Amino acid sequence: MRLPMSPTDSMFLLGETREHPMHVGGLVMFEPPEGRTASDLREMFVDAIARSDGEDAAPLWRKRAVRSPATFGQWAWEDDPSFDLEYHVRFTALPRPGSTTELRELVSRLHAPLLDRARALWEMYLIEGLDDGRYGLYMKMHHALADGVGAMRLLRRALSSDPDETGMPAPWAVPDTSDPQRSVVGAAIEMPSTAMRAARGVISEALGLVPTIIGTVDRAMHDRGGSLSLAAPQTILNVPIAGSRRFAARAWRLERLRMVAKASDSTLNDVVLAMCSGALRAFLAERDSLPDESLVAMVPVALRNGKDSGNDLGVLMCSLGTDRPETAQRLAGVRTSMSEGKKSMSGMSTVSRLAASAVGVAPLALGVLTGNRVLSRPGFNVIISNVPGPDTPLYWNGARVDAVYPLSVPLDGQALNITCTSTDGRIAFGLTACRRTVPDLGTLLDHLDAELVALEHAVGISPGVDVAEAGF
Amino acid sequence: MRLPMSPTDSMFLLGETREHPMHVGGLVMFEPPEGRTASDLREMFVDAIARSDGEDAAPLWRKRAVRSPATFGQWAWEDDPSFDLEYHVRFTALPRPGSTTELRELVSRLHAPLLDRARALWEMYLIEGLDDGRYGLYMKMHHALADGVGAMRLLRRALSSDPDETGMPAPWAVPDTSDPQRSVVGAAIEMPSTAMRAARGVISEALGLVPTIIGTVDRAMHDRGGSLSLAAPQTILNVPIAGSRRFAARAWRLERLRMVAKASDSTLNDVVLAMCSGALRAFLAERDSLPDESLVAMVPVALRNGKDSGNDLGVLMCSLGTDRPETAQRLAGVRTSMSEGKKSMSGMSTVSRLAASAVGVAPLALGVLTGNRVLSRPGFNVIISNVPGPDTPLYWNGARVDAVYPLSVPLDGQALNITCTSTDGRIAFGLTACRRTVPDLGTLLDHLDAELVALEHAVGISPGVDVAEAGF
Repeated sequence: MRLPMSPTDSMFLLGETREHPMHVGGLVMFEPPEGRTASDLREMFVDAIARSDGEDAAPLWRKRAVRSPATFGQWAWEDDPSFDLEYHVRFTALPRPGSTTELRELVSRLHAPLLDRARALWEMYLIEGLDDGRYGLYMKMHHALADGVGAMRLLRRALSSDPDETGMPAPWAVPDTSDPQRSVVGAAIEMPSTAMRAARGVISEALGLVPTIIGTVDRAMHDRGGSLSLAAPQTILNVPIAGSRRFAARAWRLERLRMVAKASDSTLNDVVLAMCSGALRAFLAERDSLPDESLVAMVPVALRNGKDSGNDLGVLMCSLGTDRPETAQRLAGVRTSMSEGKKSMSGMSTVSRLAASAVGVAPLALGVLTGNRVLSRPGFNVIISNVPGPDTPLYWNGARVDAVYPLSVPLDGQALNITCTSTDGRIAFGLTACRRTVPDLGTLLDHLDAELVALEHAVGISPGVDVAEAGF
Repeated sequence: MRLPMSPTDSMFLLGETREHPMHVGGLVMFEPPEGRTASDLREMFVDAIARSDGEDAAPLWRKRAVRSPATFGQWAWEDDPSFDLEYHVRFTALPRPGSTTELRELVSRLHAPLLDRARALWEMYLIEGLDDGRYGLYMKMHHALADGVGAMRLLRRALSSDPDETGMPAPWAVPDTSDPQRSVVGAAIEMPSTAMRAARGVISEALGLVPTIIGTVDRAMHDRGGSLSLAAPQTILNVPIAGSRRFAARAWRLERLRMVAKASDSTLNDVVLAMCSGALRAFLAERDSLPDESLVAMVPVALRNGKDSGNDLGVLMCSLGTDRPETAQRLAGVRTSMSEGKKSMSGMSTVSRLAASAVGVAPLALGVLTGNRVLSRPGFNVIISNVPGPDTPLYWNGARVDAVYPLSVPLDGQALNITCTSTDGRIAFGLTACRRTVPDLGTLLDHLDAELVALEHAVGISPGVDVAEAGF
């Protein structure tokens, strides 16, 4: 039984190359419950795999992408007939005593390779050996299967807010009844064999959309955000990329950003963008590579249309104000740019919204369709996403989630991706970059930290205190 | 400065896909010197990296493959301008207590992904955490850079036969003066900028060879080995493959195989092939998949033409006699088939020898040129290589090499590869397979073990004793 794939999702497969795999990732840091160690938690995973016949894995975790004459050459989903849980769930360790530096190196390496397309498009790694007693769960999932928001929803459902809850199922065995992907896949099981005829209709419709999407993307890039230049300046980040990755991450107390937002009548997202603006300005300036024009960020925003499906995102183009020397000026610029963008999007038709949901992959889509690897002048310089997470402590069988660090997808012409996730009162910035293009992500973290302090100064509040952390 | 790549080597790049990466590998097991641990050895590697400016790495380890208008669209070699040793040398561990089963799983995973083509085509992993105190060094190298024989030569040069030698350089820093690759790359450094004109000539010549190679391959498959059928039977191993890998390995005392060879007037290689024949017969029979006709193995043999370069191999097609129920009959059949094949090859012209050196990639080359993934009827069923190694104990800064297990390249239509390496009185069989196609490599190891005993019986000697080992 095969189910069609949405055109947006299939673009993530079509546009994938060995230089830019299209999967997202997340590193969840766990604190073992009192008196238990990482090995105890490994045993729980090993037991869950041993008990499983594969049938307990939820449909989302079992489906694979297929393309054949039977699907008219288009990508579709089907249940993996040889689903192999032991392949997907992996156990590894750091050389002891393991530090967060080594964990970051390991996760950078794990994030680089392509997923096996013959299988369900995910891998999970339980990582032991950190000398502080925590353990990491790195999760890798194809963008065609879930975006950052979808992945956070899956994570949230696999966890409990009750520290004493035990007997919780493994993440892949959590029933995904609230997931629309599930209802699609679930429905498929009851569909008669003639369902491919219906699927064919959906595929044709999807194909028809592509020119609309490209056209809308083009218009969107030129019309939206009145204060924006028509395109972004060329920077050292906007070049072709290679297949290796560099990952760095740090978390700050969410309250610090909230205070800055409140004192400046901005949103939390504006503060995130202003931090990135100041940090990127400093990062580029110290490399004598700061352009005269402001950098433009592509900022995915949730499309609030009552649905809750896979890659249901819209996009704003935000002028980051990196040409402005003062922190307060940059924050004001970001606020104006985002506010104008939102007004423009609220006036969009349903068709435009649908088309805009493909903007995230526009450079890719254009590249696939035109054969150009990198546009001579980028439409934007950097993708900055903020994926909201739960605000309370979360647990898996008593192990507390200490932090969640997101990893995303650098692209040709977009060598750096910044994705933020907030959990339990902290906001984590995950920087995923082409290892060859962006040599020193650590300094960018330091600049983010300095910019948060500068923002606190600029709005007249005293700098907040954060747990000192080297990277994580 | 760019240097042309041989047509055989470039085929390993042209034919590579995400389903069949074209790199070989090796797992070297080390016993730390008295009173030292795996961590001490890690320190030696870490120090070597810290001291290195990248310039001490030998040219072979620094060169990357490039293709551009400047090389007329053909693959060539150049020194990586951003060579990054820390990227290539990696440190990892098994969850403790680590067993050989977990080591095998880890190496299977590490062997699967594509190498990053923007960089020198190798990766090295120092693996700690085995509960028996040994440590593993897994090395991955593109087939365009070195074949199994070349990799063994590199390994041999990096090691010492003196257990007390200290201050030995890291493997990548060993001067490769005896390596013809070195002389080519070395010469390049002095070449004037007009050298690309000369390179162009070599490339044109190489291109002109391709039709000759294909033609010769075709003739070779049909003419050689008088007792052979024109093609091999279809088996469950001769199907399209996916991107994941399964690795299993075991070593036997070389003396046992030598005794069988001596008692039966066979070569050591004949005994290796007879072991594989019996094991494959049993493996296929217990799956109700044994074909009536004998399986055909492709057996690379060294071309003894006085040179010592990269992929300098010839190939014989050997009828394994899997249709014969008796061990002795199968050994006799292998002996005859190999002896006839060698006679045929000794009569080949130099051009035919050169062309035959591409036979190893023939299915691939044909697939690339014709667009067919798998021939309807395979030319052979399995690739069986025996790469001779040094016969004495070897050491790296006092750590003794306990065993060397080879990993090779499954292909579309060739889901299983068997490669053997002998070191220090033991012969190791490394089985590399498509994880999806070949579910149970462990039983194949057991069948190899049983067949060696059967061969000993058949030639009338008492079964030898081997160290009991689960996999490794």
